[in-house]
Amino acid sequence: MKWIETSIMARRGVARGAVGSTHRLTEERQGTFRYVYGPYADPVLRIRPGDIVEAETLDAFGGVIKTEQDLPSKVLNMPFVNPQCGPIAVEGAEKGDVLAVHILSILPRGPQPCGTTALIPEFGGLVATSSTAMLNAPLPERVKKMEVTTAGVKFSDRVTLPYEPFIGTLGVSPEIEAVSSLQPDYWGGNMDLPDVAPGAVVYFPVQHKDAYLYLGDCHGRQGDGELCGVAVEMNATATVQVDLIKGWSIPGVRLETADFIMSIGSARPMEDAARMAYRDLIRWLVADYGFEESEAYFLCTQAGRVRVGNMVDPKYTLGASMLKTYIA
Amino acid sequence: MKWIETSIMARRGVARGAVGSTHRLTEERQGTFRYVYGPYADPVLRIRPGDIVEAETLDAFGGVIKTEQDLPSKVLNMPFVNPQCGPIAVEGAEKGDVLAVHILSILPRGPQPCGTTALIPEFGGLVATSSTAMLNAPLPERVKKMEVTTAGVKFSDRVTLPYEPFIGTLGVSPEIEAVSSLQPDYWGGNMDLPDVAPGAVVYFPVQHKDAYLYLGDCHGRQGDGELCGVAVEMNATATVQVDLIKGWSIPGVRLETADFIMSIGSARPMEDAARMAYRDLIRWLVADYGFEESEAYFLCTQAGRVRVGNMVDPKYTLGASMLKTYIA
Amino acid sequence: MKWIETSIMARRGVARGAVGSTHRLTEERQGTFRYVYGPYADPVLRIRPGDIVEAETLDAFGGVIKTEQDLPSKVLNMPFVNPQCGPIAVEGAEKGDVLAVHILSILPRGPQPCGTTALIPEFGGLVATSSTAMLNAPLPERVKKMEVTTAGVKFSDRVTLPYEPFIGTLGVSPEIEAVSSLQPDYWGGNMDLPDVAPGAVVYFPVQHKDAYLYLGDCHGRQGDGELCGVAVEMNATATVQVDLIKGWSIPGVRLETADFIMSIGSARPMEDAARMAYRDLIRWLVADYGFEESEAYFLCTQAGRVRVGNMVDPKYTLGASMLKTYIA
Amino acid sequence: MKWIETSIMARRGVARGAVGSTHRLTEERQGTFRYVYGPYADPVLRIRPGDIVEAETLDAFGGVIKTEQDLPSKVLNMPFVNPQCGPIAVEGAEKGDVLAVHILSILPRGPQPCGTTALIPEFGGLVATSSTAMLNAPLPERVKKMEVTTAGVKFSDRVTLPYEPFIGTLGVSPEIEAVSSLQPDYWGGNMDLPDVAPGAVVYFPVQHKDAYLYLGDCHGRQGDGELCGVAVEMNATATVQVDLIKGWSIPGVRLETADFIMSIGSARPMEDAARMAYRDLIRWLVADYGFEESEAYFLCTQAGRVRVGNMVDPKYTLGASMLKTYIA
Repeated sequence: MKWIETSIMARRGVARGAVGSTHRLTEERQGTFRYVYGPYADPVLRIRPGDIVEAETLDAFGGVIKTEQDLPSKVLNMPFVNPQCGPIAVEGAEKGDVLAVHILSILPRGPQPCGTTALIPEFGGLVATSSTAMLNAPLPERVKKMEVTTAGVKFSDRVTLPYEPFIGTLGVSPEIEAVSSLQPDYWGGNMDLPDVAPGAVVYFPVQHKDAYLYLGDCHGRQGDGELCGVAVEMNATATVQVDLIKGWSIPGVRLETADFIMSIGSARPMEDAARMAYRDLIRWLVADYGFEESEAYFLCTQAGRVRVGNMVDPKYTLGASMLKTYIA
Repeated sequence: MKWIETSIMARRGVARGAVGSTHRLTEERQGTFRYVYGPYADPVLRIRPGDIVEAETLDAFGGVIKTEQDLPSKVLNMPFVNPQCGPIAVEGAEKGDVLAVHILSILPRGPQPCGTTALIPEFGGLVATSSTAMLNAPLPERVKKMEVTTAGVKFSDRVTLPYEPFIGTLGVSPEIEAVSSLQPDYWGGNMDLPDVAPGAVVYFPVQHKDAYLYLGDCHGRQGDGELCGVAVEMNATATVQVDLIKGWSIPGVRLETADFIMSIGSARPMEDAARMAYRDLIRWLVADYGFEESEAYFLCTQAGRVRVGNMVDPKYTLGASMLKTYIA
Repeated sequence: MKWIETSIMARRGVARGAVGSTHRLTEERQGTFRYVYGPYADPVLRIRPGDIVEAETLDAFGGVIKTEQDLPSKVLNMPFVNPQCGPIAVEGAEKGDVLAVHILSILPRGPQPCGTTALIPEFGGLVATSSTAMLNAPLPERVKKMEVTTAGVKFSDRVTLPYEPFIGTLGVSPEIEAVSSLQPDYWGGNMDLPDVAPGAVVYFPVQHKDAYLYLGDCHGRQGDGELCGVAVEMNATATVQVDLIKGWSIPGVRLETADFIMSIGSARPMEDAARMAYRDLIRWLVADYGFEESEAYFLCTQAGRVRVGNMVDPKYTLGASMLKTYIA
Repeated sequence: MKWIETSIMARRGVARGAVGSTHRLTEERQGTFRYVYGPYADPVLRIRPGDIVEAETLDAFGGVIKTEQDLPSKVLNMPFVNPQCGPIAVEGAEKGDVLAVHILSILPRGPQPCGTTALIPEFGGLVATSSTAMLNAPLPERVKKMEVTTAGVKFSDRVTLPYEPFIGTLGVSPEIEAVSSLQPDYWGGNMDLPDVAPGAVVYFPVQHKDAYLYLGDCHGRQGDGELCGVAVEMNATATVQVDLIKGWSIPGVRLETADFIMSIGSARPMEDAARMAYRDLIRWLVADYGFEESEAYFLCTQAGRVRVGNMVDPKYTLGASMLKTYIA
């Protein structure tokens, strides 16, 4: 039996593990890409629980950085960055439900070198920014293009890094807010967390009728923290299966793989993101895995794992996880 | 000569100090109050630079906490808190301009005791919250009503505090985002900074055509930091004069009184708010007051003042100021 | 009656307001200055509660920056900076007592210009540092010398700032640690808080037998936050009266003036310093001023004041205060 | 060839990979354990580069929590916690050198159940503390004892966790400070980082003549962040080989295994620990692995890994690492 058949999605989802229709959300069908996660745009697609969406996502720069000479400060038009596919309406979703997104595959699209990273003025984890405001001069702007295939990311002549793709920005609409696609929060968004990868199921707390799923910003790979602020950005085809879990109230994003369960927190300072993630993991262990609270606190202390997603976005994102073998 | 005639608003505003029409924005005219700062609502009023607006604002709870028995967890319906008047369209305002708001007066409205403060579960500066997430049990919920008049805030039988009103939430719309009225940011919003008081002029960087001014959440007074998260909340009549400064590009909110200029930063952790505020103050001294950068840095070191607005909202707000006598 | 006769020191101190002997702690008598707050050095002086100490303090650079050409990176020898007078043994002091230090006067010493400020590489509130580590290049190093007299600090040809001196570094020894005089903590140390000024009484929790008082680092004045990290540093003569309060257990430093009481917190991030200060202030109001906890929390919310001491030292220091008129 | 023969220690150490004498540092020989990392205690042992030390360490509670009824608040005597073996003088070590510590083995000592974890009032990552000060009531105090052998940590009847021991507190003396063994910093100390494990070599910047190595606080295992503040504490026998690298100036602690190199940062807020670690890793890649700075920044962005050691101690500790295969 494949692990997915034992997943929370399969066990509790409306679709009960059945696969529905497949929808192709091409660039053409998307038309205008979206730069906020919110309820004010009309859905580009309506799907049912169990359906599959194959979306043509753009990279965080909307694909305008084609060469190493295309400097971000010249070619970007703020705040129109990190374009998103969506919103995708999911029938039957209501506030208080959970939207489950099973990531099936992520493939690079477009002419090589299709991967882009960059040093952008006033952005990144090791430079002064508009919020960690300083008087130091910015670093020189720089773009680095890389060939990305499923065989690897050609970082340099001497190093090819493994292709370990994930969806950088994924989530549902807030109830009344429309928030920049650069920001992660309890509804998802720009988490830049490498665990949001093929094979994982991600669970989002629905805030608005029909959920309004957005996605974009696929990465060919990324280190912990997304240090300079720009991963291996690429146009991609992301294929996900979507399901709906009725009446599961969760305070933020959760994730599941064959091996572990994870709670995700997004906040500043970074310790608050860690606190959010771990507190939710403890509450999850108590609610669904039979733990008494202090026992769950002890287990996380001795066996919890932390993944730093990003330390560069408007909120930092961390995931706290527990191996399934310890809680079975 | 009154100081306001020497203010930046008077010298650089489109109205050149002239007073335009007065608009009464009653509760009835407002109709539906707003819970986000954004461009997606239709203006309730269109005004011209120099015009005066007299707005009937609601308190942060929409006035539903009428007695000390009305517990927030019972009567509030998240996220529909901190209702705002607006948006008010200001003719001619465009991205890259500055909206100047001169606060003329703030008066309490409604039956006494019209002031409300409260301990709300998972909210406040000295308790665990959804982001500074902890396992400790919350404090008991509690509401305290206080009589508020221009003569004072009757805090208890033994103490009446001075009436020092200000506007807790004031600002313009972001360009494409619609952000909760609980959050402060570079466009203003829920700064909860006591300097936003009668006599002051507040300057906002316009992001969207016609600026879309919002206001609400008047406080009868507040200590530094708004410690428990709830000031002396009250329904009020706030009267402001609005002007427009073309072609003044500022990165965040600034403020001016007869005595000082102030830059305002909103961020977490708190030192980032301080950094934002002070860096902008230094850049302002360099751009408009003839200082060389390191000299401005030294002057702020020896004579800058910091006001902690809030340490409870989604971003903390601080103001960094300099006396005009030191920079004349 | 002078306010000091109603102070906690006068009411509860061992000396009962009486003035004891005066001790002159000259540079010669001090001999070797101290660079840590700790119990491992022998006392330079033994005094009794009620005694007065007149200490010749050195500036934070040990006086080696005599001209604007003496760059810190050339003339300083880390970690031998911020030299302190002391330790001064106070007879009868034991762990669990409080040492009260009433600051009587602070006068500049030495040839003019005796005031020094500076931009030091990797140090300051608006630059990358060894802990807020970044890749940006440092600002150019710079020294600024200023004439300082009791008439004012000659900041530039156009501006003379008021002389508002205070003791930057003041405190007692930890029990077993010996901590850099650059760091503030619950025992005092490098708080760089302008309220530690003539007229104030500062209360320190004694950790070690005989208290071991240290002091140094007088400033001619300073803005909130000590932004670039270097106030108006000067050699000085600081005169203080010392008393001892038996059996008053306090968790950190407190301060009293004619007008207000203040609790002081030192921590990172800055909100933690604010939390420490405000929580202690609330507990003080409960223990000694007849408040119920939630009432004290409300009072601080509506009337508390925050002073940012430093935002540059190893821990940031804030004071939270309450006017005596509100708690009489 | 064993990887250790290719380590920096083997290649650059004074001992050139040779093994010297073995010293047994029993509890008896240690006599008085140490509670600060500092230069003020006399060495208990003098060794030469290449020598091996087999130390009998105590657990963080000095072994006084023998049953689940021994509550920390009853049996601990602050600040006398986290007792350390040492100082161990290393001949020839001088400021500016690096002390290399190769961890050979860690074995539990004493009667079962020899592992202890606990919920301690005002301590831990998900509760209010003395610095993240709040008004919430503390959690109930609790002790949990566990059987620990090299076969595993018996967490509960249903779960046995792998035995993955490491040294919680390890480092050298600061130059003039004597700092609590509860605190981690650039000289090491209470890092509580699970990578400080058998097989690893840890590099410390020597601050004081003869280095003065301290160690203690072995853990049977620990999750990322040491969430409740108390890992699987145990009395242990820790065996390490010590070497000395002359003239290698490093700003903080570094670590090496067969597979990766790691820079370690300790600071608050947590993002500062991450910044310190990653900046040092970049500078290391530039200095010793032939990278240009922006290229190293990009590589860390795409392939860096972060390990959260502790989020509970006076400074939080993170390690940033890079696989050797990417930099060979």
